[in-house]
Amino acid sequence: MSHTPYTRLDKDNAAVLLVDHQTGLLSLVRDIEPDKFKNNVLALSDLATYFKLPTLLTTSFESGPNGPLVPELKAAHPNAPYIARPGQINAWDNDDFVQAVKATGRKQLIIAGVVTEVCVAFPALSAIAEGFEVFVVTDASGTFNELTRDSAWRRMEAAGAQLMTWFGVACELHRDWRNDVEGLGTLFANHIPDYRNLMTSHAALTAQ
Amino acid sequence: MSHTPYTRLDKDNAAVLLVDHQTGLLSLVRDIEPDKFKNNVLALSDLATYFKLPTLLTTSFESGPNGPLVPELKAAHPNAPYIARPGQINAWDNDDFVQAVKATGRKQLIIAGVVTEVCVAFPALSAIAEGFEVFVVTDASGTFNELTRDSAWRRMEAAGAQLMTWFGVACELHRDWRNDVEGLGTLFANHIPDYRNLMTSHAALTAQ
Amino acid sequence: MSHTPYTRLDKDNAAVLLVDHQTGLLSLVRDIEPDKFKNNVLALSDLATYFKLPTLLTTSFESGPNGPLVPELKAAHPNAPYIARPGQINAWDNDDFVQAVKATGRKQLIIAGVVTEVCVAFPALSAIAEGFEVFVVTDASGTFNELTRDSAWRRMEAAGAQLMTWFGVACELHRDWRNDVEGLGTLFANHIPDYRNLMTSHAALTAQ
Amino acid sequence: MSHTPYTRLDKDNAAVLLVDHQTGLLSLVRDIEPDKFKNNVLALSDLATYFKLPTLLTTSFESGPNGPLVPELKAAHPNAPYIARPGQINAWDNDDFVQAVKATGRKQLIIAGVVTEVCVAFPALSAIAEGFEVFVVTDASGTFNELTRDSAWRRMEAAGAQLMTWFGVACELHRDWRNDVEGLGTLFANHIPDYRNLMTSHAALTAQ
Amino acid sequence: MSHTPYTRLDKDNAAVLLVDHQTGLLSLVRDIEPDKFKNNVLALSDLATYFKLPTLLTTSFESGPNGPLVPELKAAHPNAPYIARPGQINAWDNDDFVQAVKATGRKQLIIAGVVTEVCVAFPALSAIAEGFEVFVVTDASGTFNELTRDSAWRRMEAAGAQLMTWFGVACELHRDWRNDVEGLGTLFANHIPDYRNLMTSHAALTAQ
Amino acid sequence: MSHTPYTRLDKDNAAVLLVDHQTGLLSLVRDIEPDKFKNNVLALSDLATYFKLPTLLTTSFESGPNGPLVPELKAAHPNAPYIARPGQINAWDNDDFVQAVKATGRKQLIIAGVVTEVCVAFPALSAIAEGFEVFVVTDASGTFNELTRDSAWRRMEAAGAQLMTWFGVACELHRDWRNDVEGLGTLFANHIPDYRNLMTSHAALTAQ
Amino acid sequence: MSHTPYTRLDKDNAAVLLVDHQTGLLSLVRDIEPDKFKNNVLALSDLATYFKLPTLLTTSFESGPNGPLVPELKAAHPNAPYIARPGQINAWDNDDFVQAVKATGRKQLIIAGVVTEVCVAFPALSAIAEGFEVFVVTDASGTFNELTRDSAWRRMEAAGAQLMTWFGVACELHRDWRNDVEGLGTLFANHIPDYRNLMTSHAALTAQ
Amino acid sequence: MSHTPYTRLDKDNAAVLLVDHQTGLLSLVRDIEPDKFKNNVLALSDLATYFKLPTLLTTSFESGPNGPLVPELKAAHPNAPYIARPGQINAWDNDDFVQAVKATGRKQLIIAGVVTEVCVAFPALSAIAEGFEVFVVTDASGTFNELTRDSAWRRMEAAGAQLMTWFGVACELHRDWRNDVEGLGTLFANHIPDYRNLMTSHAALTAQ
Repeated sequence: MSHTPYTRLDKDNAAVLLVDHQTGLLSLVRDIEPDKFKNNVLALSDLATYFKLPTLLTTSFESGPNGPLVPELKAAHPNAPYIARPGQINAWDNDDFVQAVKATGRKQLIIAGVVTEVCVAFPALSAIAEGFEVFVVTDASGTFNELTRDSAWRRMEAAGAQLMTWFGVACELHRDWRNDVEGLGTLFANHIPDYRNLMTSHAALTAQ
Repeated sequence: MSHTPYTRLDKDNAAVLLVDHQTGLLSLVRDIEPDKFKNNVLALSDLATYFKLPTLLTTSFESGPNGPLVPELKAAHPNAPYIARPGQINAWDNDDFVQAVKATGRKQLIIAGVVTEVCVAFPALSAIAEGFEVFVVTDASGTFNELTRDSAWRRMEAAGAQLMTWFGVACELHRDWRNDVEGLGTLFANHIPDYRNLMTSHAALTAQ
Repeated sequence: MSHTPYTRLDKDNAAVLLVDHQTGLLSLVRDIEPDKFKNNVLALSDLATYFKLPTLLTTSFESGPNGPLVPELKAAHPNAPYIARPGQINAWDNDDFVQAVKATGRKQLIIAGVVTEVCVAFPALSAIAEGFEVFVVTDASGTFNELTRDSAWRRMEAAGAQLMTWFGVACELHRDWRNDVEGLGTLFANHIPDYRNLMTSHAALTAQ
Repeated sequence: MSHTPYTRLDKDNAAVLLVDHQTGLLSLVRDIEPDKFKNNVLALSDLATYFKLPTLLTTSFESGPNGPLVPELKAAHPNAPYIARPGQINAWDNDDFVQAVKATGRKQLIIAGVVTEVCVAFPALSAIAEGFEVFVVTDASGTFNELTRDSAWRRMEAAGAQLMTWFGVACELHRDWRNDVEGLGTLFANHIPDYRNLMTSHAALTAQ
Repeated sequence: MSHTPYTRLDKDNAAVLLVDHQTGLLSLVRDIEPDKFKNNVLALSDLATYFKLPTLLTTSFESGPNGPLVPELKAAHPNAPYIARPGQINAWDNDDFVQAVKATGRKQLIIAGVVTEVCVAFPALSAIAEGFEVFVVTDASGTFNELTRDSAWRRMEAAGAQLMTWFGVACELHRDWRNDVEGLGTLFANHIPDYRNLMTSHAALTAQ
Repeated sequence: MSHTPYTRLDKDNAAVLLVDHQTGLLSLVRDIEPDKFKNNVLALSDLATYFKLPTLLTTSFESGPNGPLVPELKAAHPNAPYIARPGQINAWDNDDFVQAVKATGRKQLIIAGVVTEVCVAFPALSAIAEGFEVFVVTDASGTFNELTRDSAWRRMEAAGAQLMTWFGVACELHRDWRNDVEGLGTLFANHIPDYRNLMTSHAALTAQ
Repeated sequence: MSHTPYTRLDKDNAAVLLVDHQTGLLSLVRDIEPDKFKNNVLALSDLATYFKLPTLLTTSFESGPNGPLVPELKAAHPNAPYIARPGQINAWDNDDFVQAVKATGRKQLIIAGVVTEVCVAFPALSAIAEGFEVFVVTDASGTFNELTRDSAWRRMEAAGAQLMTWFGVACELHRDWRNDVEGLGTLFANHIPDYRNLMTSHAALTAQ
Repeated sequence: MSHTPYTRLDKDNAAVLLVDHQTGLLSLVRDIEPDKFKNNVLALSDLATYFKLPTLLTTSFESGPNGPLVPELKAAHPNAPYIARPGQINAWDNDDFVQAVKATGRKQLIIAGVVTEVCVAFPALSAIAEGFEVFVVTDASGTFNELTRDSAWRRMEAAGAQLMTWFGVACELHRDWRNDVEGLGTLFANHIPDYRNLMTSHAALTAQ
């Protein structure tokens, strides 16, 4: 069997799509613990900023029960294209969204959202069908329960999406610590409590 | 590796097959909690009605220990073809069933049933072999335990079935909220307690 | 060690307190699956009606993020005392609430609510301190996670509360099936899918 | 704090009460895996026979959805008092049952049944109230889920019941292997696959 | 992507390979509960007998710590080829074993054993390499833990093995209940407690 | 049985003891997910500040592998007594610590730390022995695994400690939302993602 | 309610009883992972040596399926009283064992063994009945599954046993790191991989 | 679908790559219990030695928070190439590492490391891209949690890596017990407590 060839994420060719992280929809997410999920989404947002990746925000019906976009994401990406979809469930069915994606000129799409089997899977499958390389950030995407998540992952995987987590995305984009030790270290310290502890212990000893 | 291309569910090309949701067999289902499972099956039934999808009911040995079809399904689809199989374990081995499927003229089959590795997997595999596109509703199908379920999912997936859940099916069929906000909202409110709560909170505030 | 003597629930001496089952607060509940939790709360509500137990509803800040009382509870108990607390976190700190409890003349309090360690535990502990017999309905109460729940249960248990579930409450109140086979059977059929299946199978065979 | 003094099970002072192990009710049991639960119930039944403990069988509404007593229990205790209760939910509310218990002359009651929080807990609490020593066989009792089970255990424990499992009951009754090595070994081999394997390995080597 | 075509198990073309179900090795199995595992292995053995499938037994170092073959398997298949391998870890490296397999003339191999990633996976992979169709009975195979099991399943799946469980195997071989209702029913009653309960309930009512 | 009377936390009579939340020791904590644990500890720290509770910090061997105190705690309580114990494992064996506790004049001690069965349990048990009322914050304390945690909780509970979580502590101290709606709301918004979402949704609608 | 007063373990008043850690019986232990359990038992053994606690070994039927005592325990305590019981299941029923316990002159008994509900619980309950203070080392004791373990813990707890783990025992006996930093550190490094890692990291930096 | 052909591990064609098992990074590993993980890593190290496989060690930033290589690995492979990478996150980006791999002349690479989705997955994917056969030792690799691990496994699997565990690797390399019964037995006894127990029981009986 020919397998998926290794396509590395490239910070000059990747864009981030944050789909429907809205305050109402977030109450539906039960396949991941809320503190951890919040951290993962913000970590993905922070790495998008850190690596200067074009980032797109999109939402569905903010004025209804789905609620507004999480304010932290708005604040972190004030100049990002922001597509409030008038009704399309699959963001890829919205022309403004697709044009914004194509306007980035990037061929690697890093996607996360709520809920996984719809807001993430639908545009991921559509993007693959149009020739994009799709990287799903599994731990920054959430849904009703583990059974649902597992079905969603399998469907995307079968279509050729690569499943990753925010930490792997950051490491694959960075390539080499020497590109910026402090920057990457700060990103990790802000979002991995165990890593922050290691850094604090280390700093205490080396300062002696 | 060439991957599964994205085939979208189309409400004009899809049919729903509900296989062996019988009161006796349901006592065998232990890979999903009973309240949740009942809800999922009824949600799938409701979406079939809502999207006017041709729906088929089939059972195995209702007069024996397997028990009668769950009455709610009968009541919801009074005019659906109802094939009480005289003995075939794989519903696809029953000519009446296959003819009823083909009579719908649909090429996309949405299948759920009890138990997953037999009543769902066998007709799913047979239908794929005859060229149908098969979408298994994993959360409206149940079986003995998670080990069994996992084996069944993998076998169907390897054969080309797409694994989905009822919520994803509904969203993919609906395409755009504007097609009917109230209808889809009602479907969700009736089957997703968290979503109903969001709607209630929202209505209370907007009514002020 | 002298142990807790067996105090049986008595339908002529029991009242039901439903505390803060509000649509916003329900999004905090993650120690029990939403479909099951909704079912359990409605089952408790139904048994209160069935056994004609005095029932009290109370809420906290409905106009704020906590959201309104779940509409089904309002609808089920239209004439129940309804105490919208202006600020007291412990319902027992609200004089209207305590007076309404005392006005029932009942000494056995069946309590459920959201969240367990606060809205249930605080009035439960206060009521015990005033000499009431307290029965906590554990499966109609919910909170953030299992760790929190466990701490709350232990604190109430140490203070003398009896931990029960809605099914046990119903059975202990009913005492003897002969008091009303159909009524209790209906309650069970409406809230226990497995029991409904048993009844359907049984009815199908005995009707033959 | 004065604690529960150690009261040992005594084969000349103990009786076994098997409450409502009926084929319908068993479909409600989901806090323990079916193969294991069946094994545990039969192990308890076998030890009752082995230690010649007076054993009582009781059921609730066998002709209805609850179904008949598991046939193996009937067959194993053909001469045991068999009280088919006409309606009492708490077996202790049935005079025939209580008289049968008292007729054994035993003060230590080993109780198991379905479901734990009702069919086991109610007679256990009643028996304690009348001065019996109660030993609940937790692994031969079953109920809807772990949350329910946990509440039931805590309520019985608080009232002074001792929680044991069938293996502990057998060992405490037997006291000394020398009383009958083969008999106890056979009981274990029939109900503990790992122990049977140890015996087979051992026999193979010592036979060489 | 071309997917695995549906190859149905055929009772005239299938053989069963039971690999290293030895009393010592069984103490290593911790990914499945012992009562359930014992039941599954015996169910597979029983179905092999019921469907008159050629069955092979093989073991590794019975005189050493691995221990003897489980006696029930020996007793159930007294005339089956029994290959006590002198040292080969992969049964397929043993010529007698391969010859015995080929002597059956069957092309579909149903394999189960202990431990999954070695005693099952190695001959499964070798048999596939030689053109056999391999069906792994996942619930009659066991190993150290779930992590190990999952790796083993994925490796076999990637090589083209079909993952099934004993119940699915029985149903796929039987095809139609009318071929022998009583025989298949007995097989299920002996190995599925819930199904036995359904049958008992049903028999009680239809006998009335 | 006489039970533990309800002793309410009183903000004028309570002090907070934070024991050994050190960067090295935190790597031992595996009974609670790191993101959640970090959040809980900081929430407890924040509520101590918010309610102006006397707070004590203590550590063990900061210069060794245990590592320094988590910097956030130092920063949050710059004027708190800080007892770096020279070797005593039980903080209560350190006179400076006990004097600092007594100097607060408070009789209610809210304790959390790492690891639960040692750094929390030992001073908790000692404080109870000296007549303090002890409230253990279970979700701001961590240890090796759930088995260990459970043993620790049971030992403290048997000695009379009350098990609570940070949210319950905050609510019991606050008593009434009207004392400061915004302050308590901010505390919750900062440490309960679901609550923050509710507030954001609510604010968005009420601002319309 | 008067609670259990805090009785500290005292190295001059404590003895360790290791009950039936035999190679055959260990195959029955499934409530704790084997690598962890082995580590915990050896850690308890090592701390007994380190604190020079009188240690007793006892076994049941070593020549039968239960198998010999784990060799490491024999080797670690070559001069310990070793009571191979001829048949008593409760070690406390063996006079030699009780005399050996009393000969130590210790009143605090630290007990661990296999299986928890029998080999640990029976002598623990008997020792309490004779006035000893009993400390059960829960993580160096094992049994069939978590349900069984939980029942056993509750029974011992109700009788007044204190539940601890090996790490808590070591810390409570040691009292102050200054008594021997290196000795205690070595014990921890040998049995807590995370702690060893902390020490290695620390040593690497301080050696620079 | 053409599947992955069975490529057996061959001790004359395999090399072992141990990537970033550093004392700091190990504190990040939470998808596997520490005692078990330590055992698995050392088992892999021991089998590399036993089968005389070329072994490479590599680390990232040992002087920083990541910490030094676990000393046991250094000690076990004193002459192994040891590449302390100056900054490359993907070891395959380091020329010295790749040259050392190629210098072994082996085409089968057995890889394990910390953390799975980065330190293992990146070089695994790169090596596959260069034509190596890659075998990932899943149980000697660790990461943040099961969600992350699962994503990493799926990505490597899709690229053609074979997922194995150390036990399977050892068995596939050894081929036949007769090649060295004692050597392989010792490896198992040192790293599988259950197997050691079997050997001890067996030795005790055969020595009689």
